[in-house]
Amino acid sequence: MATPLDPQRTIDELKELRALTGDEDGAHRVAFTPVWAQARAWLQAKLEELPVEVHTDEAGNLWATLAGASERALLLGGHIDSVPNGGWLDGCLNTLAALETLRRIVATYGTEPPVTVRLVDWADEEGARFGKSLFGSSACSGTIDMEEARRLVDRDGVRLPDALAEHGIDFERIRESGRELAEAGGYIELHIEQGPVLLDRDLPLGAVLGTFGVERHEIIFRGQAAHSGSTPMNKRKDAFLAAARMSPEIYAITERHGGVCTIGSCRTQPGIVTSVVAECTITLDQRHLDAESLARMLAEAKEASERFAGEAGCTVEWKRLWHIDPILFDDELIGMCDDSIREVAGESLRLPSGPLHDAAEPARVGIPTVMMFVQSLYGISHNKIEDTREEHLAQSVQAYDRLVEKALHWLARRS
Amino acid sequence: MATPLDPQRTIDELKELRALTGDEDGAHRVAFTPVWAQARAWLQAKLEELPVEVHTDEAGNLWATLAGASERALLLGGHIDSVPNGGWLDGCLNTLAALETLRRIVATYGTEPPVTVRLVDWADEEGARFGKSLFGSSACSGTIDMEEARRLVDRDGVRLPDALAEHGIDFERIRESGRELAEAGGYIELHIEQGPVLLDRDLPLGAVLGTFGVERHEIIFRGQAAHSGSTPMNKRKDAFLAAARMSPEIYAITERHGGVCTIGSCRTQPGIVTSVVAECTITLDQRHLDAESLARMLAEAKEASERFAGEAGCTVEWKRLWHIDPILFDDELIGMCDDSIREVAGESLRLPSGPLHDAAEPARVGIPTVMMFVQSLYGISHNKIEDTREEHLAQSVQAYDRLVEKALHWLARRS
Repeated sequence: MATPLDPQRTIDELKELRALTGDEDGAHRVAFTPVWAQARAWLQAKLEELPVEVHTDEAGNLWATLAGASERALLLGGHIDSVPNGGWLDGCLNTLAALETLRRIVATYGTEPPVTVRLVDWADEEGARFGKSLFGSSACSGTIDMEEARRLVDRDGVRLPDALAEHGIDFERIRESGRELAEAGGYIELHIEQGPVLLDRDLPLGAVLGTFGVERHEIIFRGQAAHSGSTPMNKRKDAFLAAARMSPEIYAITERHGGVCTIGSCRTQPGIVTSVVAECTITLDQRHLDAESLARMLAEAKEASERFAGEAGCTVEWKRLWHIDPILFDDELIGMCDDSIREVAGESLRLPSGPLHDAAEPARVGIPTVMMFVQSLYGISHNKIEDTREEHLAQSVQAYDRLVEKALHWLARRS
Repeated sequence: MATPLDPQRTIDELKELRALTGDEDGAHRVAFTPVWAQARAWLQAKLEELPVEVHTDEAGNLWATLAGASERALLLGGHIDSVPNGGWLDGCLNTLAALETLRRIVATYGTEPPVTVRLVDWADEEGARFGKSLFGSSACSGTIDMEEARRLVDRDGVRLPDALAEHGIDFERIRESGRELAEAGGYIELHIEQGPVLLDRDLPLGAVLGTFGVERHEIIFRGQAAHSGSTPMNKRKDAFLAAARMSPEIYAITERHGGVCTIGSCRTQPGIVTSVVAECTITLDQRHLDAESLARMLAEAKEASERFAGEAGCTVEWKRLWHIDPILFDDELIGMCDDSIREVAGESLRLPSGPLHDAAEPARVGIPTVMMFVQSLYGISHNKIEDTREEHLAQSVQAYDRLVEKALHWLARRS
């Protein structure tokens, strides 16, 4: 197979986009803003150089379709939007790698590949302006909460429906975009890892198993305020001490089950130096790729909280803030992802994704999905210092292209 | 000794004062307010029924002097001011018990007891209006910080010097009140315990050993913010977890040394559910009656904080908020206090005072001092539900009077 794939072109285009839509403070492609529209127009112009049909759906997602021998479609997904002061790779690396792969497919198969191949640039993955991530992909999958989304307002008081209207989108019709998925038989997305796992193992690439399920709670310990000087230690009902004693146990439970957890905030009432804490509120975020393990982590954490509260003469209450089930990617596609990585880089690693991604949306409505991660220097993203070595970027485009090629034939066999 | 001491009169006068200066929301004798002035006038009228010289000193402290065979003076101290919505016994029990004892001394010795006996009603023990406790007694002892006090302002923006002027007090001259202590040879104060120690032991009365030394610090742990989903547990620098792990150890250190400690507040930065805590600030209040033990508690707590910070990949910084040395009362007076309690109630208990009291001021300038505590129902004060059984109030007046009688002869022997 003579491949005209040119990973260096992708790197050059990433730099071109950075020059066009970023500055020394990072990327500024916040969805539904003029800079984002500019980035979109730039991408669309490049797509229109190819023999593809290009349109925007009812939710603002940009589609480029190369019709194949079969109507069954392999989707190559990504998002060109960024957080404010964002990195240069999250997530436009995915759309630009998909663009390069689309070019390679045209070079290989002309205008009739074995199955239809579609690039999708989802609208507003980050949710940076309205606080609601995965907007375009969840509208398309139909999982979006319309009541909640209708009420969203940005910092300037602009309502989401009004911001959408400025970009030609009728909020009440966004779920009609769901028709785009009618023939979808697979979904593939490349993304920079937003953590340090690949960096620590000194590996350029990894195959993603799915996105973590999340249990997010507020835990309120209630004891009794008492004078810090006149109250003997054994007469206290110290809500902070109950929370403090419990915390390492919560982390130990997480370690046993192989998940992650974070106590992200702690507030105390009355919160003065001369009083025992009467009320201590902490937030707990627990994540696991396995639903049953996540449920056990939660149950054991609740047990631990009751025990430590009881020992301190306190009570404890849990309030759920948010919850999402784990979303597992497709075993066969994960295998092809592994194979492609090994062909390019010698070694692959399977790892879960802590953050959510657009890929979760097609996956949760039953479309076989996989993601590929490329190493992030410093393990950091959502930050202007986000970076990946160019050598690894080139490898990611190569491995991604091989994965798409394998999936294309896999889908042709299934169609 | 034919004693006309009438503890029931003290109880009746306490109720009379409650009716005059309190309501269903508690006592309202906040210093340098009209209600306090009213309470003062009421007390002064009762004192003027006795053959005593009454005047107010430069700091607003009210003195009633029964001149004795010697100029050496035994001081019977207290404070008629209260916190807003305060209890009916803190601290006016002390001034009214002193009043009753003064009556008994006049009945016993006529106008010439062995030594001079002086009742002092200190001005503004509570510091409720200006946030500075022990105003009158610290002005008299000379330990007051004039620069700090000069700048104090109440909630309505009234400066302390202006509020004092309304009550005929020239702020710049308050330390001239120190002359009142020239002949002082002893100081005795009765007070309701502001904790549950006597309640727990089912004892009406206790002899106070002194007031705790206090070390008050802010402890700041600094780690690194990181995404709660994408950051593996072993890659974190979790400032909250460092503080949480340290906290039980700080309490264990305190238990080993026999002091008390309180972590009264905890603040987290960025303090959001999706981020590892980058900065966790707690306040620590440590108290001990023994200066060396307090110093060791502090040193060991600092060591522990360094250890737990290091284990969590964090740093830690301590900032001192406040400090006071322990103030020990007089061994001989403590012995007399014990004896008096045993004579009245059968059993005595020696206990430290967590809160500060006016008695700390004469004690720290070398005047032999002791306090007697009476049991507090619920172990609570600074609250309208503060209470003591009438039987215990009567016993407290009896034991206090016996203590004064013993001290009077003790001082006569020393003069």
